[in-house]
Amino acid sequence: MLVLQIDDIKKIIDKIGFKEYFLRLIDTIEEDYKAWDDFDKIPRVATHVDGGVIELMPISNKSQYSFKYVNGHPKNPKKSNKLTVMATGQLSVVETGEPLLFCEMTLLTALRTAATSALAAKYLAPKDSKVLAIIGNGAQSEFQYLAFSYIFDIKELRYFDVDENAMKKMAQNLKEYDIKFTACKDAKECIQTADIVTTVTADKRYQTILTKEMLTKELFINAIGGDCPGKTELSYDLVSSSKVVVEFLEQSKIEGEIQQMPDDYTCPELHDIVNKKVQLNVSKDGTIIFDSVGFALQDYSVLRLTYSLAKELNIGSNLNLIPNIKDVKNLYSLVKE
Amino acid sequence: MLVLQIDDIKKIIDKIGFKEYFLRLIDTIEEDYKAWDDFDKIPRVATHVDGGVIELMPISNKSQYSFKYVNGHPKNPKKSNKLTVMATGQLSVVETGEPLLFCEMTLLTALRTAATSALAAKYLAPKDSKVLAIIGNGAQSEFQYLAFSYIFDIKELRYFDVDENAMKKMAQNLKEYDIKFTACKDAKECIQTADIVTTVTADKRYQTILTKEMLTKELFINAIGGDCPGKTELSYDLVSSSKVVVEFLEQSKIEGEIQQMPDDYTCPELHDIVNKKVQLNVSKDGTIIFDSVGFALQDYSVLRLTYSLAKELNIGSNLNLIPNIKDVKNLYSLVKE
Repeated sequence: MLVLQIDDIKKIIDKIGFKEYFLRLIDTIEEDYKAWDDFDKIPRVATHVDGGVIELMPISNKSQYSFKYVNGHPKNPKKSNKLTVMATGQLSVVETGEPLLFCEMTLLTALRTAATSALAAKYLAPKDSKVLAIIGNGAQSEFQYLAFSYIFDIKELRYFDVDENAMKKMAQNLKEYDIKFTACKDAKECIQTADIVTTVTADKRYQTILTKEMLTKELFINAIGGDCPGKTELSYDLVSSSKVVVEFLEQSKIEGEIQQMPDDYTCPELHDIVNKKVQLNVSKDGTIIFDSVGFALQDYSVLRLTYSLAKELNIGSNLNLIPNIKDVKNLYSLVKE
Repeated sequence: MLVLQIDDIKKIIDKIGFKEYFLRLIDTIEEDYKAWDDFDKIPRVATHVDGGVIELMPISNKSQYSFKYVNGHPKNPKKSNKLTVMATGQLSVVETGEPLLFCEMTLLTALRTAATSALAAKYLAPKDSKVLAIIGNGAQSEFQYLAFSYIFDIKELRYFDVDENAMKKMAQNLKEYDIKFTACKDAKECIQTADIVTTVTADKRYQTILTKEMLTKELFINAIGGDCPGKTELSYDLVSSSKVVVEFLEQSKIEGEIQQMPDDYTCPELHDIVNKKVQLNVSKDGTIIFDSVGFALQDYSVLRLTYSLAKELNIGSNLNLIPNIKDVKNLYSLVKE
């Protein structure tokens, strides 16, 4: 069984570059969303604990099965200097059930979330979008900028976080990119002149990062921080007056911004957009919210891409985690004293 | 994050011996079943695929969260010379969500299943049980014998499998033990004179390994092979006329022998027995079936015991699967080119 650690992900990215990795990842996610009906899908299995949530996210088609383990503990950074989100995942063969890959997924989660944001924006945001606003400059923010920058000709990055150090950190990390950096004093200032806004804040509670009144123009809002029951980022007014696209309605009604909407609320899913069953764009339909909570299909896509890259580039460790025995009924032979 | 491979499990068992390992495991499972109400429990999340099933089994209390990935593909041995059951698992801290251990669980599943069988028998079978019958001599059979041998003074092992090579393999593996080995030509012969019977066959369909008519005396039947919808081992007559104990009624009604019973069927759970809320024993109550399908709590127990032994004995590999960074909001620093 192949195991990919943090350094292995860095090796893969170093080898092919961020641009190539992101473009392949966006393609892979798009390909899998096109094949939406081939997947066996369930809402993630969430265990709500004091101060956080622990989730398992399984999905499969006829060929492969993947799951991700992921937590969300917003108090981790302050309380124990640990990440808010940590994740691991596995990819297996459906025909035999045999696991192929165990993988770090803290990085892969940030990468696939950004790639999914960019994929949604490719369809939903104006093609000539030039100004990106990022509200919440924590662990995921740089990945968001990068993914958008490979799909759009981003000229300006507007940014805001309640934590000034996070703002500095993000700007410092991205300084090599030839764009205008505009540090903002609040969310309202941040979204002024923006074509695309990503909200990626972490508090586990109802928040109002953006309201309808704050908008001075029509926007593509990539809302990725509201992803838990009781954890939202956008005001009711803003959600109810905008077109909304989700990943998987059944899960998003529990976890997304649309948890604020009535029970019978409905809206298109990303696969409808990717398969052109529903055609929406800010340029003709006004403000669109991609109410993204993260769905298992994106984890499947990033695992299968990363597994194939690791094999191709000969990166990772082969560990003896699955018995390899001639007589498969002789499991005992592995531990006989 | 600690990773335990197949060889690490062997090292742990070599270091402390099978007897000590099993006795500690039986104690650990008993301790956790005593604290049944402290656990957040759900039926496992099963994905039924062509020729098999793939499952995730999560559970947690206030302190730790565990999950197991496990498949069941009965055609694997013949079709691809792979094991029917392969498993991996993880143990995490609830307070932060941080994963502590990723572990092979193919061996641990066989070990914890046998330990749970022995725990149930400790309460339900006559104290002076001497004859053990094992029907199905595949990957789990030796572990079954060992676990029972540490709780009962087993003098004779009667055994039967439709695969003669499996029978030979089991007898060969256990030949160092000073007991009478009785190879049998069918299940009926196998259970004659037995005090305890384990049925551990693998076909994914309704089977009738044992019927009421075959019984010549009252028995403790440890039925561990019927563990899937449509996969049973005992006849309706036998189940309906015996006392039955299950691990977790909600899951067992879907997967256990009792899936044959009416919807409103009810019976005690193992925690009722361990906590002495219900007192049953073959010696006073007649034939008792432990309708065991495997529950996440047993995986939790075996993971926490094995993790603590690995730490104590300094066994396993520390892999960089979870980011270890000073500024937890600077995830990007791990992959910056």
